[in-house]
Amino acid sequence: MSRRQLHLNVNILNSGFHPAAWRRAPSDPAAFVDVQHYVRLGQLAERGTFDAVFLADTPSFADRPEFRPYQALEPTIVLATVAARTERIGLIATASTTYNDPYNLARRFASLDLASGGRAGWNAVTTADPSASRNFGADDVTAHRDRYERAAEFSDVVKALWGSWDEDALVADKATGRFIDVARVRPVNHSGRHFKIRGPLNVPRSPQGWPVIVQAGGSEDGRTLAARHAEAIFSVAQTEAEGAAFARDIRARARAFGRDGGIVILPGLATLLGSTEAEVKRREEELWDLLPKEYAIGRLAGLLQIDPKRLRLDDAFPTDIPVPPNGMQTFAAATLQTAKRRNLTVREVLRELGGGTGHRMFVGTPEALADDMERWLQAGAADGFNLMPDVFPDGLEILVNEVVPILRRKGIFRHEYTGRTLRDHFGLAGPGEREAALALAGDD
Amino acid sequence: MSRRQLHLNVNILNSGFHPAAWRRAPSDPAAFVDVQHYVRLGQLAERGTFDAVFLADTPSFADRPEFRPYQALEPTIVLATVAARTERIGLIATASTTYNDPYNLARRFASLDLASGGRAGWNAVTTADPSASRNFGADDVTAHRDRYERAAEFSDVVKALWGSWDEDALVADKATGRFIDVARVRPVNHSGRHFKIRGPLNVPRSPQGWPVIVQAGGSEDGRTLAARHAEAIFSVAQTEAEGAAFARDIRARARAFGRDGGIVILPGLATLLGSTEAEVKRREEELWDLLPKEYAIGRLAGLLQIDPKRLRLDDAFPTDIPVPPNGMQTFAAATLQTAKRRNLTVREVLRELGGGTGHRMFVGTPEALADDMERWLQAGAADGFNLMPDVFPDGLEILVNEVVPILRRKGIFRHEYTGRTLRDHFGLAGPGEREAALALAGDD
Repeated sequence: MSRRQLHLNVNILNSGFHPAAWRRAPSDPAAFVDVQHYVRLGQLAERGTFDAVFLADTPSFADRPEFRPYQALEPTIVLATVAARTERIGLIATASTTYNDPYNLARRFASLDLASGGRAGWNAVTTADPSASRNFGADDVTAHRDRYERAAEFSDVVKALWGSWDEDALVADKATGRFIDVARVRPVNHSGRHFKIRGPLNVPRSPQGWPVIVQAGGSEDGRTLAARHAEAIFSVAQTEAEGAAFARDIRARARAFGRDGGIVILPGLATLLGSTEAEVKRREEELWDLLPKEYAIGRLAGLLQIDPKRLRLDDAFPTDIPVPPNGMQTFAAATLQTAKRRNLTVREVLRELGGGTGHRMFVGTPEALADDMERWLQAGAADGFNLMPDVFPDGLEILVNEVVPILRRKGIFRHEYTGRTLRDHFGLAGPGEREAALALAGDD
Repeated sequence: MSRRQLHLNVNILNSGFHPAAWRRAPSDPAAFVDVQHYVRLGQLAERGTFDAVFLADTPSFADRPEFRPYQALEPTIVLATVAARTERIGLIATASTTYNDPYNLARRFASLDLASGGRAGWNAVTTADPSASRNFGADDVTAHRDRYERAAEFSDVVKALWGSWDEDALVADKATGRFIDVARVRPVNHSGRHFKIRGPLNVPRSPQGWPVIVQAGGSEDGRTLAARHAEAIFSVAQTEAEGAAFARDIRARARAFGRDGGIVILPGLATLLGSTEAEVKRREEELWDLLPKEYAIGRLAGLLQIDPKRLRLDDAFPTDIPVPPNGMQTFAAATLQTAKRRNLTVREVLRELGGGTGHRMFVGTPEALADDMERWLQAGAADGFNLMPDVFPDGLEILVNEVVPILRRKGIFRHEYTGRTLRDHFGLAGPGEREAALALAGDD
């Protein structure tokens, strides 16, 4: 057990990562709005001693909802439900720094953290989706740099609010009638470009101190933000070399912010597995046949901000497309690179990405996947993975029932939970008094 | 069973309504941040076939937290947890129209509504608390009229968002690959003084259509808002005559908005019960002894916006205090009226209100309470009550175990749930296509 250990997070998005997932029996097409579906996936992942489950999010009606389910339910409501029906697994919810208030968000996540006994994580994202902007009074997307500037101030003040309670502020002495030692709960008195917030938060600390901060940006601004705040990072890496370069870059940037360790890097990894090569092939064909091609092309064109007519299934993928400056840069760049590097047709790109948009897709057997994960871990290309099974529940069942036992035999994944909080699972220290004091001082 | 039926809602605030509740064993002083505490209360209320449990809220650190617990956890997170562990009981959460975004709020409550199988209610409040203002960039409280104007527009757009999906918009036909009929999900295109929101919402309808809208304002602006939007009203009434007058007034105002019925009026009713008169007396004395007088006087002075030095326990209650124009008008007025009407000392006012601030307090036996409730119901002074037991869990246990059986024998309270949604329990119609169309048309 002295070998480096993998961390496994699973993205439990609706019917699965594959856009055609909902069309494959036995997945229930209305599962995307059924909390019991998410509870069952959380319990399954917990049986596999995964570190956490995760929900992505955008506060708008989906891109092309005529073709597939999307994240409809607000993630903290779903994960509060999962928390009530599980014991150990971590619970990471996405919430936008572009379209929330820091006080409400800090409080909601602190509440989820207490409700789950210290298992919450906040995936802090900026929102670049124009249809989301229009739900919040804006006519267009906020510029990339402005979004990240707001996100940095937002993260600062959320941490200050979480740190506004000392651990021993709750006295609750029935004999004297003293409930809270108000000297140990301090205002944050934040006044910045975007926010003016007095505080303190009205929620005490949780068993893990406060929620784990997760981030996902791969752009220049995103990396800076992650290096400053993130304790876990959902990255995009198609190759071991990309993964290792990203890890080196983030750790160097973090050191420049005075941080030494305490960052778990989890590249996204979509999976399409079968117990045998023949099963893999059959599953892949079946999902490809069920994928509406019009949808897949439209989605890719949207990501790249080009006319969908430029993408014809059997033509070579156009090589002259620039990365759009104000969109999902990381995914767009990864997709373009994959196409170029291997000289693929449009059809091949779509198949390679499993109908997805940018994340690495692993297609194969449990043995091959376990070997692949071990290689990435040893190469310093990953501390674990943010897994995106193609179809639920069977795409997660095969991970839990077949892949996890192999990883355990290799000695690179836990046999049982040794802690109770998400910080315990990720091996992250609690915020502690020192960091709380620093967070507060930073806002003076 | 043809007699008018009572509706019972219970406010499950932390250790109980009485400020000294937390000091009485066996209540756990940390229960206010333990979701299992709320789960147990929800299960207990469900055993009593109550209509709903309710959580009040203010997005700030409490008034005088050195003396007592307060609503720390964000209510929808708590009620999502309660939903996961109960089957039938309604779940009403408070959220401020002053310090939220309509899109996020509409989505969060629609998510809770789906997660609970159609049991959610939204208690829409405006926030007058200066310490809350300072957590959202404001230096002071927004003026009463502006808060209510924003609340009216906020409620309009939330209803429009909830109505943006037709009931049959989710197609989910695996054979054709058609998931959502996007023609049946319409933008709201709202553009008003406070909000500009395109929509549609990204959450489909729940089994009850959408959450029940609850309101609590008793001021002129509050009554207008309630008459226009509320389906259940938490009112303040010290006497049957006040209750009946309020009900007549609200129903007349609602008719002026074209509404006929569909409003359940629930006056607040704090309870301090004992199986015998001797037990009642003992419990009352015990709680009075445990109440920090400095706290009770400070809280009352804060409500009335006066110097606490003007309130001395054994002096007559000052009769020259005006209702503060920009505060919690309803509670302040009720408190002042109680003091004047009965010529009370400060100590007597505090005892009368159970250390509280404005709601009627019933002190007595289960038989006497059941008779009292029946009288109010028959007099048209109430459709039921928003109950605030003095101390949890025993203050709720006696309601469930002793009061409810008497009400059932009187034929004025259900023996079992006949429906599954909060609208079913309250006897409220679903929003229906007609109302959805109206809500949308109202924003053109």
